[in-house]
Amino acid sequence: MAIKLYGFVPSNATFRAMVALFEKDLDFEFVKVNMAAREHKTPEFLSRNPFGHVPVLEDGDITLFESRAIALYLARTYADKGTDLIMKDPKKMAVQSVWMEVEGLKFVLPSHKLAIELYFNVIRRGREADEALVAEFETKLADVLDVYESRLAESKYLGGDRFTLADLQHLPNLHYLMKTKVKKLIDARPHVSAWAADILSRPAWVKIASMLRSEGFV
Amino acid sequence: MAIKLYGFVPSNATFRAMVALFEKDLDFEFVKVNMAAREHKTPEFLSRNPFGHVPVLEDGDITLFESRAIALYLARTYADKGTDLIMKDPKKMAVQSVWMEVEGLKFVLPSHKLAIELYFNVIRRGREADEALVAEFETKLADVLDVYESRLAESKYLGGDRFTLADLQHLPNLHYLMKTKVKKLIDARPHVSAWAADILSRPAWVKIASMLRSEGFV
Ligand SMILES: N[C@@H](CCC(=O)N[C@@H](CS)C(=O)NCC(=O)O)C(=O)O
Ligand SMILES: N[C@@H](CCC(=O)N[C@@H](CS)C(=O)NCC(=O)O)C(=O)O
Repeated sequence: MAIKLYGFVPSNATFRAMVALFEKDLDFEFVKVNMAAREHKTPEFLSRNPFGHVPVLEDGDITLFESRAIALYLARTYADKGTDLIMKDPKKMAVQSVWMEVEGLKFVLPSHKLAIELYFNVIRRGREADEALVAEFETKLADVLDVYESRLAESKYLGGDRFTLADLQHLPNLHYLMKTKVKKLIDARPHVSAWAADILSRPAWVKIASMLRSEGFV
Repeated sequence: MAIKLYGFVPSNATFRAMVALFEKDLDFEFVKVNMAAREHKTPEFLSRNPFGHVPVLEDGDITLFESRAIALYLARTYADKGTDLIMKDPKKMAVQSVWMEVEGLKFVLPSHKLAIELYFNVIRRGREADEALVAEFETKLADVLDVYESRLAESKYLGGDRFTLADLQHLPNLHYLMKTKVKKLIDARPHVSAWAADILSRPAWVKIASMLRSEGFV
């Protein structure tokens, strides 16, 4: 049975799952959920994800939600296909897990708030920026990026010496941030900047960036 | 080399790691970090966790932070000791991972905000409650608990048919919530209420509850 990914453009959680599908070189059907029509709140969709959020993955008899759990499932289940996204050595995997947690608990909040405000509200909708909100989350993001700068000075990738889920999880929000003035926070940190350029230019992400462009999200 | 847990009482992240140590029946040394003296911001502590947060676990040559990554490491590394906290079957493990993500991304924010406000600020410090904040996060928590109620009507535990990390991760905040008026949100949902009573009465958590009592946190 084919893999189905339910989601919508430009949802960052959808792209977190989708980039894992591309990295793992898996065929899948992308089922677009019509958020405007509140299709994600219908009983049918809620039976897939009771929180009424995208993405959802169906693979044979299994249905999963939460983008990071989906990416982890794909990395484990299709271990021999495409890019290997998890460390085999248990100690290395433990360190990788730390940085996966850091993305979800420390990076995502400021980066998502800034992406929504500066990319979606200001750049796309032409609204005025809420400068107090921007300042607050720029400070928070800068603190996280300072830690990343020292980590990446010692380790080529966050999770270890090769690209793993720990890096992949960052891609969607990092992509949007690079379109905004927050790019200066990345550019100011040479290791973070090299890492961002590296992971954003991976073929799996380039496919998503061009899908975004073709849907009008420049 | 003995396992060391760096943390402090009553930090909920510290107890998330500590309850995993107790469930796994592991001996460890609890190294109390003096937060008042800002010991967690010294260069020595920052070399263990660059974010300057507790807990930190040292086990032989490995140093880890992020409480959920620590619990996962212990569950995997000491698979044959104490309680088995992870599903062996890959599909069951994928479902368990979904609910581990849900705790960290959906439960923790409202439950932590309410625990800080209603337990630490109101009950312990005798301050006036910020009613607007309480109302906002009670609504958010109620939405999450509605999903838990249907999940727990089908599955004895969040992660599957037995107690796993998906449940364990909830313990610290759940403990504090049960001391506040938010208990009514739990009591109103029979499956959530039975689940909370069950997991809070596990010997590993009872040990922590009595440590809290002996340090004056009733
Ligand atoms: N933690 C979830 C977040 C899912 C999420 O919030 N998705 C958004 C789109 S990026 C959504 O479905 N929003 C619809 C809503 O909130 O009703 C994940 O990573 O999958
Ligand atoms: N996501 C982290 C949270 C760690 C955390 O925020 N710990 C708090 C205590 S519960 C802390 O160290 N606070 C000190 C500070 O913020 O400076 C984890 O689960 O380990």
